[in-house]
Amino acid sequence: MASVIKQVEQYIAAHHEEYVERLKAFLRIPSISTAPDAAADTRRAGAWVCELLQGCGVAAELVDTPKHPCVIGDSGPVNGGGPTVLLYGHYDVQPVGALPLWKTPPFEPEVRDGRIYARGAADDKGQVLTHLLALEAWKKVAGRLPVRVKLLIEGEEEIGSVNLEPLVRAQRDRLACDYVALSDTAKLDDDTPAITYGTRGLVYKEIRVYGPSADLHSGSFGGSVANPGNALARILAALKDDRQRVTIPGFYDDVAELGATERKQMDRLPFDEPAYLRSLGSAALVGEAGFSTLQRRWCRPTLDVNGLFGGYMGAGAATLIPAWVGAKVSMRIVPKQNPRKISEAFDAAVRKLAGADVRIEIDTHSLAAPYLCPIDSPGAQAAARAITAGTGRAPAFIREGGTLPILPMFKDILGADSLMIGFALPNCNAHSPNEFFVLEDFYAGIRTSAHFLQTLAEL
Amino acid sequence: MASVIKQVEQYIAAHHEEYVERLKAFLRIPSISTAPDAAADTRRAGAWVCELLQGCGVAAELVDTPKHPCVIGDSGPVNGGGPTVLLYGHYDVQPVGALPLWKTPPFEPEVRDGRIYARGAADDKGQVLTHLLALEAWKKVAGRLPVRVKLLIEGEEEIGSVNLEPLVRAQRDRLACDYVALSDTAKLDDDTPAITYGTRGLVYKEIRVYGPSADLHSGSFGGSVANPGNALARILAALKDDRQRVTIPGFYDDVAELGATERKQMDRLPFDEPAYLRSLGSAALVGEAGFSTLQRRWCRPTLDVNGLFGGYMGAGAATLIPAWVGAKVSMRIVPKQNPRKISEAFDAAVRKLAGADVRIEIDTHSLAAPYLCPIDSPGAQAAARAITAGTGRAPAFIREGGTLPILPMFKDILGADSLMIGFALPNCNAHSPNEFFVLEDFYAGIRTSAHFLQTLAEL
Repeated sequence: MASVIKQVEQYIAAHHEEYVERLKAFLRIPSISTAPDAAADTRRAGAWVCELLQGCGVAAELVDTPKHPCVIGDSGPVNGGGPTVLLYGHYDVQPVGALPLWKTPPFEPEVRDGRIYARGAADDKGQVLTHLLALEAWKKVAGRLPVRVKLLIEGEEEIGSVNLEPLVRAQRDRLACDYVALSDTAKLDDDTPAITYGTRGLVYKEIRVYGPSADLHSGSFGGSVANPGNALARILAALKDDRQRVTIPGFYDDVAELGATERKQMDRLPFDEPAYLRSLGSAALVGEAGFSTLQRRWCRPTLDVNGLFGGYMGAGAATLIPAWVGAKVSMRIVPKQNPRKISEAFDAAVRKLAGADVRIEIDTHSLAAPYLCPIDSPGAQAAARAITAGTGRAPAFIREGGTLPILPMFKDILGADSLMIGFALPNCNAHSPNEFFVLEDFYAGIRTSAHFLQTLAEL
Repeated sequence: MASVIKQVEQYIAAHHEEYVERLKAFLRIPSISTAPDAAADTRRAGAWVCELLQGCGVAAELVDTPKHPCVIGDSGPVNGGGPTVLLYGHYDVQPVGALPLWKTPPFEPEVRDGRIYARGAADDKGQVLTHLLALEAWKKVAGRLPVRVKLLIEGEEEIGSVNLEPLVRAQRDRLACDYVALSDTAKLDDDTPAITYGTRGLVYKEIRVYGPSADLHSGSFGGSVANPGNALARILAALKDDRQRVTIPGFYDDVAELGATERKQMDRLPFDEPAYLRSLGSAALVGEAGFSTLQRRWCRPTLDVNGLFGGYMGAGAATLIPAWVGAKVSMRIVPKQNPRKISEAFDAAVRKLAGADVRIEIDTHSLAAPYLCPIDSPGAQAAARAITAGTGRAPAFIREGGTLPILPMFKDILGADSLMIGFALPNCNAHSPNEFFVLEDFYAGIRTSAHFLQTLAEL
């Protein structure tokens, strides 16, 4: 077996130049899923993926959704069984933003200093392609895959995967798998590959506080009537205490505390706190008392004001008591907090803080669960071995503070844990001008994916 | 003499319909002094006032200032001397706010149920016009005025009378007078005319709180960095305590407490608190513990949030930690608080509350002193007699929670006390959509102004 993977590696090494040309072809398709006229180009990118898969003998089709189609593929059963892996990714890309900020046009990929620049280079076409090319290399070299591979490459990730959950639910049997693997995350830093094994969930709220039925003159009425602006400030301020703990009753009840092993492992990660602070431009790092910065970002729940609005917002002065003001407030939640329970606790706390002097409305914009993959699972260990083999370095096990609602969804519907194997750089401009993917990471990703099929087969 | 004022009254009564048409013409000029392109329209409103005065033989001119011009007029000396009164008012208006909230467009005046609706109807075009039409009536009927009348009708009241003080200082001799009279205030209620003898001062601030150098992803970074939105809420909340007392150190040090006589008189005023609450549409009356609603509005200082802004303010959700947020915050101050001292105390308190985790900028948009007129002065008593004659009811002596920075300025530069004879209703939507002026009050105002010239002459 070792000799086959060696041959696959050699095959990959011999095709670097061709791979870059094929990546360029993929990147030239402007599949901006949110664009008003995106249907044809987005579908074209999906079809491109389909054809590549079919070209190496994987059954693949474009499955329509109410908006952009989804590629579903299956390599078919392999001799001797073994785990089945579902490769997830997306072929749609972010809008390009301000064109003048791009050094070269976003859909005319160009290689400079060992990086390929284009919209979608890192997020997620370049990373999707690592897996597709690994499959192809295996097929070309060995005529077969070491494990059964299924594919789910969607065209709506950048618009919130709006049609993915119903699709996965409907195609549940067809997508049945032991593990989900995806490459839509980043390395820890330039030198350190990473497996991301946890994400935080999200409860996103909008509070509107209502006072008088119309804006009042703050001179004539000020001091005699509840001011929604003061009331909102009081409510928001009371949601966190001096130690940066969220005060909502029951908020921390279900929080899974970090185990000693995981905490130690996290403390060992190379994390340059002064550099982090400098990169943010903030005056200070501030967070929940008793936790490190990485713990605060990855493993602890928090509550942030995302926006404030209402009353007089223009230049200069207007002397009014606003009829209403509002705030966007979001909470990141961690295993094993339940988004619905936190949402209800938030509402109750806010209503209680508001009291009877003002009227309150609360909207819920997002409810998404956190996700945690057991890092000692056979699949995670197989991924780690593959990364070590593919990159020459053992991966860091890291978490992510952001939210990927598809992960708990896969767990819920397919019963499978997700392995996040990211090859982008943290500063790859994923949603900004001049997005890039380092070519050495592209090649390392292909090698890693090829090894991963092997390490999975050896489980 | 009594027969002349009778004839003036009859003349006024015979011209009601024409007066409404002329008021409509005045109101059609969109003289929003704060609008970026207001110059021409604002000047046009000033010119309209000038022409009216010139039409009844009062020398009047538009005097330029760095922004909007000011009407200065003088009827000239009268036989037999007597006091000189300076009529002050303003021809500029507030911005209109959200157009869809107006039942009819703000600059297309419409009479409904005995009220004229338009921006500026009550504040202050309708009230200014009462005086101009009273002068005109006197001139038409008697060919003369009973006292010397000077006029100062500015175009910058709604932007803080920014150029008035230098103008009054420069034109000090030309504006010399025994009393200032103005109608830019309200009746006590629908049935009770009023002389307003005191106003609160104003200290208007803008706070901006800065955190990271750009908006951050609230997932990746939330919990590890000071959020300016949370910080601002904390600062604003801490500026008032549970008893609605302002917590700024030294804030109450110089407050003149109400004397027993004035407090008793105030307690006797017909004030329907449940009706007041209903008119505001608020859930409850809330204010400084230990004081009545009228005391809170007129004689006690307070602090109000006027606006909140920053971060994500659009529809739905954006998961960001804002780079900055801001608030407009104003304080109403009372005799003998000093605006500059309060301003400095506010800045110090806010900076202390902000701490070192965020960066703070504070702008001062207004600093204005409170004002108090002796109610037993001959001029005040003449005004009271005029109101009784013009409306059939003795006026209540009241204070106003709002600020007229010009009053202490007139006292300072011209040495004259100001008599505030207001005919608007307290709920006239002066700074809100659907501003209105009751036509019967418009007519009563014209009659009162006509009588006032007479009662002044009799001093």
